[in-house]
Amino acid sequence: MSWIYRSSVSEDEERDEYNDGSVKLRNPNIELMDQDILYHLALGSGSHDLHEMFGDVKFVCMGGTPKRMETFAHFIMDEIGYKLPAGTQLQDISAFSYRYSMYKVGPVLSISHGMGVPSVGILLHELIKLMYHAKVKDPIFMRIGTCGGIGVEGGTVVITEDAYDGLLRNSYELAILGKIVHRPAILDKRLVRELKSLATQDDPYDTISGKTMCTYDFYEGQGRLDGAFCEFTETDKMAYLEKLRDFGVVNIEMECTIFAALTHYAGIKAAIVCVTLLDRLKGDQVMAPKEVMNEWQQRPQILVSRLIKKHLAQMGQLKSLASTPSSIKSPRRFKLVQQESEAHE
Amino acid sequence: MSWIYRSSVSEDEERDEYNDGSVKLRNPNIELMDQDILYHLALGSGSHDLHEMFGDVKFVCMGGTPKRMETFAHFIMDEIGYKLPAGTQLQDISAFSYRYSMYKVGPVLSISHGMGVPSVGILLHELIKLMYHAKVKDPIFMRIGTCGGIGVEGGTVVITEDAYDGLLRNSYELAILGKIVHRPAILDKRLVRELKSLATQDDPYDTISGKTMCTYDFYEGQGRLDGAFCEFTETDKMAYLEKLRDFGVVNIEMECTIFAALTHYAGIKAAIVCVTLLDRLKGDQVMAPKEVMNEWQQRPQILVSRLIKKHLAQMGQLKSLASTPSSIKSPRRFKLVQQESEAHE
Repeated sequence: MSWIYRSSVSEDEERDEYNDGSVKLRNPNIELMDQDILYHLALGSGSHDLHEMFGDVKFVCMGGTPKRMETFAHFIMDEIGYKLPAGTQLQDISAFSYRYSMYKVGPVLSISHGMGVPSVGILLHELIKLMYHAKVKDPIFMRIGTCGGIGVEGGTVVITEDAYDGLLRNSYELAILGKIVHRPAILDKRLVRELKSLATQDDPYDTISGKTMCTYDFYEGQGRLDGAFCEFTETDKMAYLEKLRDFGVVNIEMECTIFAALTHYAGIKAAIVCVTLLDRLKGDQVMAPKEVMNEWQQRPQILVSRLIKKHLAQMGQLKSLASTPSSIKSPRRFKLVQQESEAHE
Repeated sequence: MSWIYRSSVSEDEERDEYNDGSVKLRNPNIELMDQDILYHLALGSGSHDLHEMFGDVKFVCMGGTPKRMETFAHFIMDEIGYKLPAGTQLQDISAFSYRYSMYKVGPVLSISHGMGVPSVGILLHELIKLMYHAKVKDPIFMRIGTCGGIGVEGGTVVITEDAYDGLLRNSYELAILGKIVHRPAILDKRLVRELKSLATQDDPYDTISGKTMCTYDFYEGQGRLDGAFCEFTETDKMAYLEKLRDFGVVNIEMECTIFAALTHYAGIKAAIVCVTLLDRLKGDQVMAPKEVMNEWQQRPQILVSRLIKKHLAQMGQLKSLASTPSSIKSPRRFKLVQQESEAHE
């Protein structure tokens, strides 16, 4: 099968894919254009100084919902000690697109990608072009997601080693001008190992790595029995999920092939870190209470934040961000001032 | 080719697919379940009285963004003369899912579906189950969208006759338990004709019907030259778009195959009405100013609203909705009261 692109770790590491750190547009038309409208982001190369706005970006983090990525933006702001000027707050840069939400916290972008391959694909095309216009070198793209586990407990953090589609092909398939094209869905092996090394013994949950399957559907496409349609039996389903487990698939989500394929094609280091919401070998419906799920969804964020802090520290940038003194001298007194203020109507 | 399901109009019409008006779940598991969580909608059959909440629904309208569907909800409320109780406003029923937005205006649901086939698929599975739990009979599903035109001016309203994928197959392809399945992507021919008949001579734009192509990608998949990657020439692109035009494709969007296939499979009458944002034979980037585009996006809403009003009138329901007197006796004086009130701080 010509679309299987598995390569060993050593091969991957000896090849230096990111020689000068540039993002590969592989499109000669862009630099000839008068202006490039990234219109699902509500940004444009003619209307915005993209280098000025985004030139300092190092980490591009993505996840499904605007809410999760707004939460992540505030979380990472605290984690890296990034300080906003007095009287300012984070703004959704892409609010006027009504499609994606984008927050910028110094070197970190936090962006919602919606659900499924096409939605992530539109975003990646425009983000890759954004990196190019902003002249960003060596960005790291990370997807922070949720998924169904295969033989792993709910709440487990899974780092994707390789991405497979619904026919277990290690590639992203798309039709271009009526012809089928396959792009290898390869992620950065070193980044997988680095993320794994950042899980600690103290974490009250497991962090593992393995193969991830990407589907175009949440119900029938993932072998769920509880969609609007289901024409297979419980036995068929279990046989299929066990086949996936034997192949090494540890989780199923809906975005990994295109995320791996387009970042690889652009020469961008990328990783996918998801938390499992349930073990599909035990059921289909997510039964964990909302508070438990909310805590679970923080776990990939914590791991990604450790990586960001480590890299910023290595670049000598974490200290400069953190050395700016916070305007809150005493959180306890700050709380009191807020309460008193609210009381004086 | 076994996946071509084109049938003539007469065949379609002679077959009565909606004998008792029921929504076909084609899933024996659902009625055996203790509760069914529609969790991308933040609703459940155990937690909500879905029959009480949604039993009166007749029209389910969908479109890409929460913003557009909130606008449509207010627009259709005015159009059908639906009156909210004093002191109430529309609420986003699915706000806590952080995925889709859903508004209910009497017999009309207005819901955002995100971008692309997988996002629409998740929504349709849950909406079809919602119709079943609510015991709705004969609902009409309509997608109100935007698209690229092929050989038609920007601002043209297109009613989809048949939906085709990127390989011009008249079906929705999905992998179920590792095997490829094709579902016919058929829309209701009578509904197409009825919608077309509701366009008037006075409309300052064209309303046409034709074939629609569905892609999984906005850039390379639609033959655009302005994505992050492009490995074909302008000449290749034009040859491809002309091939589409010769086949009868008048517009390209990203949701029609799954929308047509899943509604057909559930025995639900459905239609797709989109406005073209540009003519792809003339370029790739959408250049129309925001105000012009906003006006264009109202056009499919106007057509769909005419259909809803006609059906409600036929059912004798439009009068009963409209006969409730509005609490605003004089819009001019209402405005003055608001202004005066704002001035008194």
